[in-house]
Amino acid sequence: MLDVDLNSDLGESFGPYRIGADEAMLDLITSANVACGFHGGDASVMHQTAASALKRGIDVGAHPGFNDLWGFGRRKIIGDSPQTLGDMLAYQIAAMQGMARVAGHRVTHVKVHGALATQAFEDRALSEALACAMRALDPDLVLVCTPHNETERAARRAGIRVACEVFADRLYGDNGLTLPRSEPGAVIHDPAAAAAQALRMVREQAIRTVGGKVIAMPVHTICVHGDNPQGVEIARAVRLALLEEGVRLRPISQLDFQ
Amino acid sequence: MLDVDLNSDLGESFGPYRIGADEAMLDLITSANVACGFHGGDASVMHQTAASALKRGIDVGAHPGFNDLWGFGRRKIIGDSPQTLGDMLAYQIAAMQGMARVAGHRVTHVKVHGALATQAFEDRALSEALACAMRALDPDLVLVCTPHNETERAARRAGIRVACEVFADRLYGDNGLTLPRSEPGAVIHDPAAAAAQALRMVREQAIRTVGGKVIAMPVHTICVHGDNPQGVEIARAVRLALLEEGVRLRPISQLDFQ
Amino acid sequence: MLDVDLNSDLGESFGPYRIGADEAMLDLITSANVACGFHGGDASVMHQTAASALKRGIDVGAHPGFNDLWGFGRRKIIGDSPQTLGDMLAYQIAAMQGMARVAGHRVTHVKVHGALATQAFEDRALSEALACAMRALDPDLVLVCTPHNETERAARRAGIRVACEVFADRLYGDNGLTLPRSEPGAVIHDPAAAAAQALRMVREQAIRTVGGKVIAMPVHTICVHGDNPQGVEIARAVRLALLEEGVRLRPISQLDFQ
Amino acid sequence: MLDVDLNSDLGESFGPYRIGADEAMLDLITSANVACGFHGGDASVMHQTAASALKRGIDVGAHPGFNDLWGFGRRKIIGDSPQTLGDMLAYQIAAMQGMARVAGHRVTHVKVHGALATQAFEDRALSEALACAMRALDPDLVLVCTPHNETERAARRAGIRVACEVFADRLYGDNGLTLPRSEPGAVIHDPAAAAAQALRMVREQAIRTVGGKVIAMPVHTICVHGDNPQGVEIARAVRLALLEEGVRLRPISQLDFQ
Repeated sequence: MLDVDLNSDLGESFGPYRIGADEAMLDLITSANVACGFHGGDASVMHQTAASALKRGIDVGAHPGFNDLWGFGRRKIIGDSPQTLGDMLAYQIAAMQGMARVAGHRVTHVKVHGALATQAFEDRALSEALACAMRALDPDLVLVCTPHNETERAARRAGIRVACEVFADRLYGDNGLTLPRSEPGAVIHDPAAAAAQALRMVREQAIRTVGGKVIAMPVHTICVHGDNPQGVEIARAVRLALLEEGVRLRPISQLDFQ
Repeated sequence: MLDVDLNSDLGESFGPYRIGADEAMLDLITSANVACGFHGGDASVMHQTAASALKRGIDVGAHPGFNDLWGFGRRKIIGDSPQTLGDMLAYQIAAMQGMARVAGHRVTHVKVHGALATQAFEDRALSEALACAMRALDPDLVLVCTPHNETERAARRAGIRVACEVFADRLYGDNGLTLPRSEPGAVIHDPAAAAAQALRMVREQAIRTVGGKVIAMPVHTICVHGDNPQGVEIARAVRLALLEEGVRLRPISQLDFQ
Repeated sequence: MLDVDLNSDLGESFGPYRIGADEAMLDLITSANVACGFHGGDASVMHQTAASALKRGIDVGAHPGFNDLWGFGRRKIIGDSPQTLGDMLAYQIAAMQGMARVAGHRVTHVKVHGALATQAFEDRALSEALACAMRALDPDLVLVCTPHNETERAARRAGIRVACEVFADRLYGDNGLTLPRSEPGAVIHDPAAAAAQALRMVREQAIRTVGGKVIAMPVHTICVHGDNPQGVEIARAVRLALLEEGVRLRPISQLDFQ
Repeated sequence: MLDVDLNSDLGESFGPYRIGADEAMLDLITSANVACGFHGGDASVMHQTAASALKRGIDVGAHPGFNDLWGFGRRKIIGDSPQTLGDMLAYQIAAMQGMARVAGHRVTHVKVHGALATQAFEDRALSEALACAMRALDPDLVLVCTPHNETERAARRAGIRVACEVFADRLYGDNGLTLPRSEPGAVIHDPAAAAAQALRMVREQAIRTVGGKVIAMPVHTICVHGDNPQGVEIARAVRLALLEEGVRLRPISQLDFQ
């Protein structure tokens, strides 16, 4: 019997600006990755999201990104040193740890957001800065990421546990990464199709790419996105499909990473 | 023989923008209050300032303020609930705790910056939100503040230790607070005058106001400002005057608050 | 036969963040006041809103506010000189003029947003800085504002034409200003009630306050808010009520201010 | 007898943060390119810089860049459409036009800043968006830029006049662009060397590259940077060398582009 976590990126609202159906998503997932005020979110949304997660018995993680509200952390920003980026990551993770503590909860994991995550996959020094920040802040933090890249390798070298992540609602390129959102069909909008893909990835412990490749990987956690219109429907369909299959949904902190 | 801490607000530079003679000040003081990226500073400056403080064996504290780069945290911003402001404070303190940890150091104290500090002096709910955030993040944190106001009282009710602070380079009004910078003569620019005032406040364990009042208070820590041209000269004069008097300079964490 | 303008504050979305049902509102109103990137909006939203207004033959105005995304321009920010605030206003108005020009349209009016508008009502120097900026940028700009305050008086002294504004969906205090949103009942959510109030204000050329006062004023333009859930319904009801009464809806630039 | 403009990028201070020796530079140059509040500067600094330029009878231009205070507009930000970037440029140029008008001056030229300028050199669609914005805002605006790239070509196709610019204090690569600041020796710190290079470029109407290439170009304007420690010394040396050679220093608006 398999244990899998269902995660979503939440807490991207701030001040008067609302994004995503956070409350509905929190009822369906087992781990919430919370924006840390740089590409979205603010201190109060972080506090409330941590409190909502605690009430439901689910995990909260830090979801740090570029300091880029206008581009929602999806624009590549090139020119900072790995040290600067590592500091930017540490700052956000620590702020999230604080807001979780204020809510009576604790941060169990880190998942890097958007363009900064994509950049880290191929950047050894940046990935090492991330691992170094995590180890300094809390060596028990789990890194949530797509495996087989610089980020996973840097984390493992640093002794950081890695939760291998797949996306229910995204197609994969032959390089093992999700296709860019700008490519047609890159985002799956049909809940049944997303649920079927999620189930297949869990059964096979592998992803299939658009070119037909099968890339083996442990599937610890499945991401469903909350910021597209079908987010809640997809999360519900994925959750149901997994439960019907007998998969147990467990927060990241309760998974067994062998 | 008296122990006193010498503190300064530092780390207000960010990106390409430089304010203050931080390195020179760090050689003279015993505790650094570091801006947390809201009214000044950034993650890398926080990291470096914590590292510089560690190397010199001096304390670092969080110096949180309004999210107001343009006004340097000196503009009053009215309209947020105490909860929102408490979250804003917790976020910054936690971020500073993280950057200190990354540097191998730890945050020993909190001193609120500018208009937010002034607002808190008279706002019981805001002061309670601050005390609550500090207790949640680390009950050993010391609050550095002017005494005899809502902020001190809220901290004491919450069991937070308070380091009573005086300013070497500012005149005091009869309400026991520093005169606003906009008033003529409010800022002392003469190093000898600042040193004489600091020494007198330590000897008398009291402040004297422009109206001739003497307000008794324990003097645990003396602030010297680093962002005015005479900052370093004033810090040097105050330090020398205290040492010649036989006062021992000790970081906040080594003071005895009985 | 009366001519009246129907205005709404729009263009407050930016980057990935959406607020308000702008397209639906633009079909109902005759003048759009566009956020200028400080409390909401961005250059592209300004461009698109001006283009949408042009296509419908309606006016666009600048809707400048405090540089305060987090507080949506509704927090009071105290500490800037009238000169600084005047520069801040001029910058935003000029940016809006540029975005209108790029869209082939032109800015006909200025309406100050939120806390900055409220502050100006009672601040002669700030109101004069606004009038001065408008006269320098384009002396034909019309100022949209509640009358009987420093802002109206400064505009008239400077030779700026004033379009007197009432709010369909807000209650008025005895000081002639809208009740703060924080007071219960301050915002009217019932479309029929808002329409009835708008119609009465146009017929009587006066507002009625919660204390029963009747304050006479020319009613040139009626504001309907687009950022509350009933915004579009209220705008539709107000529009219909006015048309059925035989009132002609005309953009600000086509009104006669005699 | 040759006419040449001496330009510098100024107005990058904002709020309490100071960069550059603007007043000293304004006494030496004939055209000031003013930051527009995105990578530096603010509305009041724009106003004051325009007023200072007017008093000295020199030109002011808009110096728009990425919305990136932390990176000072020197980080590449990738992901925006040419339309979005064109709007961002139009917004800043229009804001500068407004602040110049408020000061009684007028904007004569546009020079794009940092990473956005570098990106435009190779991006035809972005360069066309810039030219399009300039033509819509004021077809008499002159574009200041390094020639022989997409930016120059797009401007010329749009009928925008181009002032060809060289840098006194930077080495050139064989691609005709300045070497990145990160390369050793890329920035010339010796006033005499900068003056000699400026003089040679004017005499030869060409630049020489580090690889020994000579690239012919009309030299209409020479840039001296104000944000490095030797900025003022370099500007003084360049100015003196040109005057001694009999070159006349003229603002961009008084140059003849035939």
